Formats: sequence, C-alpha cells, structure tokens
Amino acid sequence: MKTIDVCLTPELLSQHELANQTVVVVDILRATSSMVTAFAHGAKQIVPVAHPEECRAWRTRGYLIAGERDGRKINNFDLGNSPLEYAPERVRGQLLAMTTTNGTRTIEEAKGARQLIIGAFLNLNAVTDFLRAQASAVVIACAGWKGHVNLEDTLFAGAVVSALSSDFGVGSDAALVASTIYRSAQSDLAGFLAQSSHVRRLQQLGCQDDIAYCLRTDLCPVVPMLQGHCLVANDLSTTR
Amino acid sequence: MKTIDVCLTPELLSQHELANQTVVVVDILRATSSMVTAFAHGAKQIVPVAHPEECRAWRTRGYLIAGERDGRKINNFDLGNSPLEYAPERVRGQLLAMTTTNGTRTIEEAKGARQLIIGAFLNLNAVTDFLRAQASAVVIACAGWKGHVNLEDTLFAGAVVSALSSDFGVGSDAALVASTIYRSAQSDLAGFLAQSSHVRRLQQLGCQDDIAYCLRTDLCPVVPMLQGHCLVANDLSTTR
Repeated sequence: MKTIDVCLTPELLSQHELANQTVVVVDILRATSSMVTAFAHGAKQIVPVAHPEECRAWRTRGYLIAGERDGRKINNFDLGNSPLEYAPERVRGQLLAMTTTNGTRTIEEAKGARQLIIGAFLNLNAVTDFLRAQASAVVIACAGWKGHVNLEDTLFAGAVVSALSSDFGVGSDAALVASTIYRSAQSDLAGFLAQSSHVRRLQQLGCQDDIAYCLRTDLCPVVPMLQGHCLVANDLSTTR
Repeated sequence: MKTIDVCLTPELLSQHELANQTVVVVDILRATSSMVTAFAHGAKQIVPVAHPEECRAWRTRGYLIAGERDGRKINNFDLGNSPLEYAPERVRGQLLAMTTTNGTRTIEEAKGARQLIIGAFLNLNAVTDFLRAQASAVVIACAGWKGHVNLEDTLFAGAVVSALSSDFGVGSDAALVASTIYRSAQSDLAGFLAQSSHVRRLQQLGCQDDIAYCLRTDLCPVVPMLQGHCLVANDLSTTR
C-alpha cells in the first residue's frame, strides 16, 4: 500500500525521500490559499521566488509581482498575501511572480520532489482526489512559521491524512499526530485556531476576513502543480 | 508569565534559546524511563555518553555499562534499555554509564541548557512540581526516533504542558499540538500508542511489559538532573 506522511516544518524535509514522492506544499495563512485562489480566478502561471529583488526582476517580463514579509505587502508590489486581493478581475489571464516568508521557501526546498502540488483548505477535495489517483507515496510539507511548527498547516495535513485513510498507509507518527489534531478540531476549526500564535499575529494586522476565507473548503477546484520553475493549474477535467 | 514550549525532535533544538531555559529531556521508550527507574532504585550517578566505545571506557573506572542500539542490548554490556532490568538489587549504590539511540543524543545536544532534567511518565508529578517551583522558562525536548517526531514523547510533552497550563504561558504551536494530542489520548494512552511505529517495533522485540511499565505514572518520585557531565538524583526533600 502506498504511504502518506507529514513533514511538520521545512527544517525536517531532509528526512524524506522526495525524489520518489508527490509533495503537497501547504501554507494555509496565507501563501498557498492565495495561490489556489489566483488559479481558481484564472491566473495563468505563478513563479515562486525566494527574494523580493528576484520578484522585481520578473515585472520587466510582464509579470504581476506579489508577496509579503512578516505578513505585510512588500512596498510597490502589485499584490500582497491576502487571498481576497486575488480577485478574478485582478488576476484572470495574468502571469504572477510571488515571494512569501514561509510558503515560497518551502516550495524551493521541496523542488527535488517527483511531483509538487499546492494544497489549502480551499482546494482540499481537489487535492485528495488528485492524490488518490496517483501511484506514488505522498508527503505533505507544512511551511510552518520561520522553521517552527504551526497549527494551521498541521491541521490541513491532518485533514488530508484523515480523508485518505482508506487509500494510504500512515507513514509515520507525525502523520498520526496531524490526523489526531484534525479530528479534535474539525467541529470548530476557527475556534481551535484562535489559540495559534500566527492567527493572533494576523488578527493584530487586521486579517480576520482572510482567516475566515482560508478555512473555507472546496471553493477552488484546482490543483496547482510545479512544472519547471513555475506553478500552473492542473486541468482536472483531463486527469479524472 | 514564564513560558513552556515543546521541541518535537532534537533536529529542531537549535530553534530554542536553551541557555536561559530549563530543558526536560524525554525518551519514554525507553531511555528516560530507565534512567528515572535507576535513580528511584538507588543508583548514584548516570553518565550519558554518545558511543558504545565511550561506555566501555567507563567500565574500567568501576561503572556498570548500559545501553542499546536499535532497541537491543549492546554485546557484553551489563544492562540494556529495559527499565525492568534496573531493579534495586542491580543498581542500588552503583555508578552507571549509558548510551542509547535517541535519548543520550538528545541530552548531548541540550547540554547548553541553563538546567537539564530527565522526564518520563514514571516521574511526571515530580517533574511538574519541580518546574512549577522554577523561575525560568521550560522546553520539553522530545528525543523522537532517529530525528523523527514520535507519538510517545509528544504525548508526555503534552501531559506536562496540560498539567502546567495555569502556571506557564504556552510558548508555541508545537506545545498546543502536544497538549491537544494528550487530551485526545489520555483516557487510553496504551490504546492510542498502539498505532505508533516505535511501539510496534518494540512489540516485535517482545517488549510489551516495558511499554506497559513506561506508561505508569508517578512510580518514581525523583528528578534526575545534569551536573557537569553526569546525571544525579535531585533530592526533592531539600528543594520543596
């Protein structure tokens, strides 16, 4: 039976043999929620980059530039990291370059994977349907917060492990930890997350609407996938 | 308010400022359970060492040598890593040198701490009483399994965080994860742990009695503490 595993922070990615695996990168608040929203609203491509200066270089090639540092939009960027900014009229047909504190770093560090996709509550069912149809083992790579474990990414990882419990063997105790957390919290995700350090940080920045949006499930039936150096939307109609 | 935090694997210890903190090293199955048992049964000193060869050198100085690799007693050692071997008639008044796969490595990596103590379910109340009386912040350092997160050490960390929730602020989401896991599992720790990879590994080695013993609480009212290069029993009668 193929296995599903969870990597609770990018600091532990070296423990996983990514080359044989499908990696799901998750940064619920808010990088991967924004990416999934952008593709659901018609964006053509997102280039994840590590540094703001790299992002600026992409603007000269016709890309919108997007990103945050410490939760705030970067000066003179077109878009920040609130998924609510990625409205259809803003992103449809557009090419984007994006840099975030944790999410794009995790994509960078997981680039050696056999296949890399982007997950969020917003595309939860699309992700689990996609993984069920794959032959390879899966690792859910939580972006965390500056190398630390966080609650929201762990919860999402647990949601995926729980949803796939009949299809995959559980790969490690970290996956058991995540699925146990999810089952404890699923009746009130928002209430549970109110304890989290990063949620409190975002609330102080006035991001309550973002948090509520990022916990909605299945608004965005897309699976963004890394092809070469950029993310594109996997067309689910052709793979099902 | 002083804070309590959890480090889920020694790979993440560099994220913590150990020099200002009391670190509780935990390796429930079975290094720290064995250490706590040895002190409760009258051992005078345990020198934790990284390698079996180092351990052998201590024998010439009159020490009993103890340890395991991959769950099995090392050839020609006096004691393995089953706490049931550390009976009063075997260890009372003795000096020990000990090496284990995960536990002694974690002690080694946490040596920069302001203060380092040893925790297990067997001394849970002694540990929480000790921490309550300290002024410093606390990190519970889980030994895990070869760098990976494990269920039993996470559970113990969660038990400590839960017990001290009125005395300490929660330092991070990792501590919230651990205490949530503990609250989910506390009514049936053994049943919950039966899912864990390392528990299954030990069961295959015939260690069921060890597992049952290591989940008992408060059999051993001692707090082993690092002084210089060796662990000694903290005399609770003088610190209370």
